[in-house]
Amino acid sequence: MELTHIDHLGIAVKSLETAIPYYEEKLGLKCYAIEEVADQKVKTAFFKIGQTKLELLESTDPEGNIAKYIEKKGEGIHHIAFATNSVQTCLDELSAKGVRLIDEHPRKGAEGMNIAFLHPKSTCSVLTEICEDPNKK
Amino acid sequence: MELTHIDHLGIAVKSLETAIPYYEEKLGLKCYAIEEVADQKVKTAFFKIGQTKLELLESTDPEGNIAKYIEKKGEGIHHIAFATNSVQTCLDELSAKGVRLIDEHPRKGAEGMNIAFLHPKSTCSVLTEICEDPNKK
Repeated sequence: MELTHIDHLGIAVKSLETAIPYYEEKLGLKCYAIEEVADQKVKTAFFKIGQTKLELLESTDPEGNIAKYIEKKGEGIHHIAFATNSVQTCLDELSAKGVRLIDEHPRKGAEGMNIAFLHPKSTCSVLTEICEDPNKK
Repeated sequence: MELTHIDHLGIAVKSLETAIPYYEEKLGLKCYAIEEVADQKVKTAFFKIGQTKLELLESTDPEGNIAKYIEKKGEGIHHIAFATNSVQTCLDELSAKGVRLIDEHPRKGAEGMNIAFLHPKSTCSVLTEICEDPNKK
C-alpha cells in the first residue's frame, strides 16, 4: 500500500457564496470547478494548490453529514484524502491491519474519483478518505 | 503574494504514543522527527507525504491551545499551513485586504520555520498558518 500525496482536504463551510471569495480574493487561489454531489448531499467548490486540492463543502440538506458536522463542531477542515493507485488494495490491507472502514469497496466521489472512507474511530479521530483518479490509470 | 503548496497540516492528538503507531503501522508513513516547541506548549511528531508534512500536536500543558482545542472540538485537524517565499509580504498583503492577523510579523515555529497565523474569524473558521523555510532561501 502506498499513499503518494494528499489529494485533497474537505473543508466544511456554511456558504460557498461567502467562502469562495475568501479563497480567491484573499488567498489568491482560483476556483476551477463547482459540482453538486447529490449522493453526499453537498455542493462542492474546488481549488488547487501544489499537489493538493481544497474541496469546500456546503450542505444541500439540513440532515446531511456536512450540516450535522457544522452544527456539532462548527466550520472547518472536515476530512483529509490521501491519493493512492488502488483504493481496493488499500482497503484490503487496512482492514487486515484492524482499521475500521466506512466503505469496504470504493464508490464514486466528486470529479469521478474512486473514493472510500475510513472510520474516525480507527484514525485518531481524523475523518480519512483514500482516493484514486481512474483517469490517471 | 504566492502560496505554493500546503507545507503541513497540524493535527491535534491526545497522545503521540497512540497516534504515531497509527500513522506508521497502518498508513505506512515514517515519523522522521519529534520536537518539543516550548513556546507553543506542544510536543510535535512529523511525517511527510508528497509535498506536505503531517505535524501531530500533543499538548504539554492542560492550559495550552491544543489541550483547549481538544477539550472543545475533540482530536482532529487543527490547522493548515501554506508555504510561501515571504511570510511578511503575505501578512502585509492580507492585512491590506482586511484579513485579521494573529501574528503581524513572523515568529519561529517547529523545524526553524518562520511562521504566522491568520485569525479564524477572517478565514471561514479554518485556523490558517503561512510559513517559509529560511533554509530554502
